[in-house]
Amino acid sequence: MPLPTTAHLAARHGRIHQALDELSLGALVVTAAANVRYLTNHAGSAGVLVLTRDAAHLLVDFRYREAVERLQASAAACPDLRVWDVPASYDEALLGCLQEIGATVVGFEAAHVTVARHDWWQRNTQGRQLGIGFRPTERVVERARIVKDGSEIETLREAARRLDAVAEAALGAVRAGVSERQVAAAVEAAMREAGYERPAFDTIVASGPHAALPHYRAGDRMLAAGDLVVLDFGGVLDGYCCDVTRTVSIGPPSPEARRLYTAVYDAQQAALAAVRPGVETSAVDAAARQVLEARGLGAAFGHGTGHGLGLDVHEEPRITRPRADVPSVPLLPGMVFTIEPGAYLPGFGGVRIEDDVLVTETGCDVLTAVPRELVSL
Amino acid sequence: MPLPTTAHLAARHGRIHQALDELSLGALVVTAAANVRYLTNHAGSAGVLVLTRDAAHLLVDFRYREAVERLQASAAACPDLRVWDVPASYDEALLGCLQEIGATVVGFEAAHVTVARHDWWQRNTQGRQLGIGFRPTERVVERARIVKDGSEIETLREAARRLDAVAEAALGAVRAGVSERQVAAAVEAAMREAGYERPAFDTIVASGPHAALPHYRAGDRMLAAGDLVVLDFGGVLDGYCCDVTRTVSIGPPSPEARRLYTAVYDAQQAALAAVRPGVETSAVDAAARQVLEARGLGAAFGHGTGHGLGLDVHEEPRITRPRADVPSVPLLPGMVFTIEPGAYLPGFGGVRIEDDVLVTETGCDVLTAVPRELVSL
Repeated sequence: MPLPTTAHLAARHGRIHQALDELSLGALVVTAAANVRYLTNHAGSAGVLVLTRDAAHLLVDFRYREAVERLQASAAACPDLRVWDVPASYDEALLGCLQEIGATVVGFEAAHVTVARHDWWQRNTQGRQLGIGFRPTERVVERARIVKDGSEIETLREAARRLDAVAEAALGAVRAGVSERQVAAAVEAAMREAGYERPAFDTIVASGPHAALPHYRAGDRMLAAGDLVVLDFGGVLDGYCCDVTRTVSIGPPSPEARRLYTAVYDAQQAALAAVRPGVETSAVDAAARQVLEARGLGAAFGHGTGHGLGLDVHEEPRITRPRADVPSVPLLPGMVFTIEPGAYLPGFGGVRIEDDVLVTETGCDVLTAVPRELVSL
Repeated sequence: MPLPTTAHLAARHGRIHQALDELSLGALVVTAAANVRYLTNHAGSAGVLVLTRDAAHLLVDFRYREAVERLQASAAACPDLRVWDVPASYDEALLGCLQEIGATVVGFEAAHVTVARHDWWQRNTQGRQLGIGFRPTERVVERARIVKDGSEIETLREAARRLDAVAEAALGAVRAGVSERQVAAAVEAAMREAGYERPAFDTIVASGPHAALPHYRAGDRMLAAGDLVVLDFGGVLDGYCCDVTRTVSIGPPSPEARRLYTAVYDAQQAALAAVRPGVETSAVDAAARQVLEARGLGAAFGHGTGHGLGLDVHEEPRITRPRADVPSVPLLPGMVFTIEPGAYLPGFGGVRIEDDVLVTETGCDVLTAVPRELVSL
């Protein structure tokens, strides 16, 4: 997929400039790798960005120098970029940059800077009398990222679309007598084949009793007749994550397995039907939860209904019950997230069904097209 | 591989208990996932541990409850474990636990707790007058992890040993006309086949000019005659990471490519020869660096010589030039790290050769057995 262009990045910078004004900050130090990438297209695992009203100061070490030069010679160049060399410590280089550009009131990402790092900044700015004050900020870049722009939607659509072929390969590998790990290997080979740069998370193949463990990964257990098998996988395409879950039956499902599947299926349909602009994230969660509660499966659904997708595989918005630390927010067109209710019965097994959706002006587009009916293999 | 046993974990707890005494702490809150795993065998992506002199309080949510119960019924059970249920927020549950056990002077991992999280703890302990004081600590568990115990060495040896078969598959996939991405797919399929649970990091296949970018991953470039190709990969086996790099030539190498390869090879040999107990990490780095400097390649070697391996793919010790933020430490038997000098010439290409070593009583064991001579394919 084409990278976001200079124009996309300029629009993103504009949203951060506005936040700088609102918060009376001269600069924002961006340290979360996904946030640095969002604002610069620099995809390295290291790199610090200092964004001011008139420049994007990117601090990178030797390993990334040539990659950044290439980027700047392309249509995906970061506007107003100034590259700063990091010969040794990123924190030393950061203080040098802030001093040279004359920043005094500097925001930082409180959710991404450790206490140890912040202490070092404080000690060294005070010790050297640099006259720099650090101010904690919350979710400045994340708030911008929560609504996807055209470039991101194009990439997320394509990422989700390619899961079709992967799901086909996954179902082809599922049969009695193969191990969970072998199925996971087939899934990941198919993801590479489909052009994903890597899995977005550890592939889950949870069979039989393991299907009752929502975050089990894949082990040596051999799939056996009568199992429900939860397959949860996703890939990263040009930095953007997709995520899908299907649950299949090895041989004809038992009445109990079918009941569980139908309940989760209906819960997912209810949540999908609830998605449209203005609806609260907590209401989408409630739509799924009420269906499961009505079937006596409320306690069997212990996790949230979904999570945002983007440069991170778990980002905002969170589709959960409202909690002090996860406030409910109204949906906006351009948000992309998963809808993934599940029900887990210890000892018996479990079912989860997950799709990726884009909020549109009137409702939602389901980006993942993998068939959703219970398949017996 | 068998998991660390209750006895291994008890010995690890013993080292932390000693640190609690030295630091006059009643409890240590462990939030880094690898540190939680090291002390409990709990391998979930969430989980907080509160370690006191007489108990290991593990806070986990619904998703991990059953997995923890299974663990506790096995030979890998965590000693003195008390499981605390996390119904919603980990931080709420943490304050509840600390209050109930009567902890007042509580250490936390300053390098793993964000400013935002710490602020929340402070605000809520003060607001509720809980009488809990949080004290930053540095590297308490990391210091214990830097020397591997018998269980860890066994797993790290096996993890490195299995790279042999992966390297063979990698070399089998390298030829003119295939893309970097296809080679990376073959490497990752071979890693799954060899039993690794996942790649330890994004596989690097950097060909031709890309080989001059030390942290390039793998793209659409087709391998071509005359290329040097840097292959850097590793897997995770039962949580433990291995990491190897080989550089191969497509067709006969040019004299310049051969010169570069020989310089890096000799630098690596010099570093390997320097490894034994009591030698400083900076001296191992210097051994490699001096060889490259003597060949006029000092500036072409912009990164450190190596990094520790364990539950993290980059951990202590760091084999680098001494820096304020990365102090040099004397080697001890049981340390495991990479030796990976490289030389990168923009526009031309690059060479890196990387092996994993275990410090023994008298020198080191090289854990990776992949042939190290320049291969032409």
